[in-house]
Amino acid sequence: MPQISKKAVDIPASPIRKLTPYANNAKKAGRKVYHLNIGQPDIETPQVVTDAIKGFDHKVLEYSPSEGFESYRSKLAGYYKSKNIPVNPEDIITTVGGSEALVFGFMTTCNPGDEIIIPEPFYANYNGFATFAGITVVPVTAKIENGFALPSVDEFEKKITSKTKAILICNPGNPTGYLYTKSELEQLKEVVLKHDLFLFADEVYREFCYEDTQPYSVLNLSGLENHAILIDSVSKRYSMCGARIGALISKNKEVISSALKFAQARLSPPTIEQIAAEAALNTPLSYFDDVKKEYVTRRDILVDGLNNIPGVFCPKPSGAFYAVAKFPIDDADKFCQWLLEEFSYDNQTVMMAPATGFYATPDTGNNQVRLAYVLNQESLKNAVKCLDEALKIYPGRVD
Amino acid sequence: MPQISKKAVDIPASPIRKLTPYANNAKKAGRKVYHLNIGQPDIETPQVVTDAIKGFDHKVLEYSPSEGFESYRSKLAGYYKSKNIPVNPEDIITTVGGSEALVFGFMTTCNPGDEIIIPEPFYANYNGFATFAGITVVPVTAKIENGFALPSVDEFEKKITSKTKAILICNPGNPTGYLYTKSELEQLKEVVLKHDLFLFADEVYREFCYEDTQPYSVLNLSGLENHAILIDSVSKRYSMCGARIGALISKNKEVISSALKFAQARLSPPTIEQIAAEAALNTPLSYFDDVKKEYVTRRDILVDGLNNIPGVFCPKPSGAFYAVAKFPIDDADKFCQWLLEEFSYDNQTVMMAPATGFYATPDTGNNQVRLAYVLNQESLKNAVKCLDEALKIYPGRVD
Repeated sequence: MPQISKKAVDIPASPIRKLTPYANNAKKAGRKVYHLNIGQPDIETPQVVTDAIKGFDHKVLEYSPSEGFESYRSKLAGYYKSKNIPVNPEDIITTVGGSEALVFGFMTTCNPGDEIIIPEPFYANYNGFATFAGITVVPVTAKIENGFALPSVDEFEKKITSKTKAILICNPGNPTGYLYTKSELEQLKEVVLKHDLFLFADEVYREFCYEDTQPYSVLNLSGLENHAILIDSVSKRYSMCGARIGALISKNKEVISSALKFAQARLSPPTIEQIAAEAALNTPLSYFDDVKKEYVTRRDILVDGLNNIPGVFCPKPSGAFYAVAKFPIDDADKFCQWLLEEFSYDNQTVMMAPATGFYATPDTGNNQVRLAYVLNQESLKNAVKCLDEALKIYPGRVD
Repeated sequence: MPQISKKAVDIPASPIRKLTPYANNAKKAGRKVYHLNIGQPDIETPQVVTDAIKGFDHKVLEYSPSEGFESYRSKLAGYYKSKNIPVNPEDIITTVGGSEALVFGFMTTCNPGDEIIIPEPFYANYNGFATFAGITVVPVTAKIENGFALPSVDEFEKKITSKTKAILICNPGNPTGYLYTKSELEQLKEVVLKHDLFLFADEVYREFCYEDTQPYSVLNLSGLENHAILIDSVSKRYSMCGARIGALISKNKEVISSALKFAQARLSPPTIEQIAAEAALNTPLSYFDDVKKEYVTRRDILVDGLNNIPGVFCPKPSGAFYAVAKFPIDDADKFCQWLLEEFSYDNQTVMMAPATGFYATPDTGNNQVRLAYVLNQESLKNAVKCLDEALKIYPGRVD
């Protein structure tokens, strides 16, 4: 029997999936499980999207251009301009989700063995894309005590070697919900220019910012045109995660023309879903107002609720729909499993993502979990109550 | 300005795309261009598919499971069983087109620097996927004089080194249309077992076989369960290339569980298009009867027409909807460009794919072209007439 590859051995399994069998058992046993573990919003997809799908009238479901339909890229450029982000259609390659944009980006900029610096905790699948491209993730730890603000320039510079090729941020952040300030982005710009690196910014949560401060895009940093690569996706913006329509965007023409060759090899992104994504750009602004209002309420229920539990600390995030909280526990993996396997309050329990999966540094964030506030307000209240009760009896409690 | 990666430099641009500007110019000048260069069929997508798309009624366009919907994989397994190919739902990972299945397959089985042997001429994008995975394509040349039959076991063994990890075939073949016999597959099986290699078979054209001989799947080779990996796609079968729904299929559980980790990193294949692909499995058999009858007629018009042109030789393919023909010309790249740039017959011309893009061995197939018979019968007749007239005056004619 021939051996599989080293990458196939090395690529990490999704950390949350380890808990799925326990969640399934809890449900089989009749318990209600509140899923705070995943980023699949319950918000309805805008009507304009479903209307466009229902209106599909092509006789032949043909390939689209490898870079995406021209009509879609033009309208998408208009969306960015409306956000004061200078993007032209030719700066955009339409990808199969933000995932493919990251893979194309890594493949285009990094050689196998190169290093990419990412502030941790970070979205666990970045590890998978790095394995894909054969590159090494080098973490710089952000502190929960600072609300996961950007680590200092010094911290980044300590990690820069001759192999460092890029820095990747997620803004607003998954899993932290932290929104980087303009000043933090300017600091990154200095590092990137000084060491001649690429700067990837995964901005798929741009629409979900809850304070007066507006999100500041990596493409707004002047002088960084050849270094900045924007990763985007319609998944969260329009609650259409299943569409798998993303984008790789850069003003660096060499990056775009090279990434296009990777895109050509896989022919095209999905056709119907692109039509749906183009229609999504007609979503009325009131949709986002309603969604934001709902998420602010949910965030406050969750975060305030958590902070009211003795021993729990959860910085209030300014964006996305995640929060990372510190619990008075021995080990988040054990605690999350215990909640599903052994705990029940009023026949309910909670599923969360242990934060260990979001840290690359070993033994970091062991008492932290990520919570996604993608459930309705009532469910969130019940989930907080469950956690409060659970911490009263969890055998691994540590104060 | 930071440098792009070596892979980004190395990944080949699509060979056909070089001709696109010339085709566009010809059209702008008012000439009719018959597109025999691409594999986008004009056949209508089955009604059951478009009905399923129009019937989309999910409130939230959610992620699907990373391996694809269970309902889809179950029904798809039923399709294979109806073809006497033993496939269970758990053997299937639903992918974003056959393209992603090949990338996952290469990543799962090969380490960077490993070699994969492919009979040439082969589908040019295999080069791109190999670059993606950092592996080297080693060609074994099939001869047009033999109708592109499988090269001998000796020819394969001459190319096997300590780095050889797999053999890849396309059956029926793009670009040749050649359908491997059971005996040829048995020969491959012996080589694969002897040297402990993986055997990839891209069988996306399975439905398009025109003789009495049935296609024989790599999964029908008993004793090869741990070595055989089937690549499939709905693109051609149901004329839904834009759906980007493919599959990686193997009885080797280690391959499937490892490929699943790559699939998990990119979250999921497209949701709507999977629903469409599931509906496609209800396509009435009469649809394929009609399609096959049409392709046989088209093939005969094209291939018989070509063989009636003095100096042209085109083996009659048994499958797919491509043919590779040898022309009495100096250079296929020049000829194809000349047809678009300078030639006109009755204000018409033809676009074809020079076969050089399908050979990895330098200076091979220089006088060959690939023709896709994806146009209606009248257009094919006109295209053949154009080629007949063109060869009478082409300055680079060589007899």
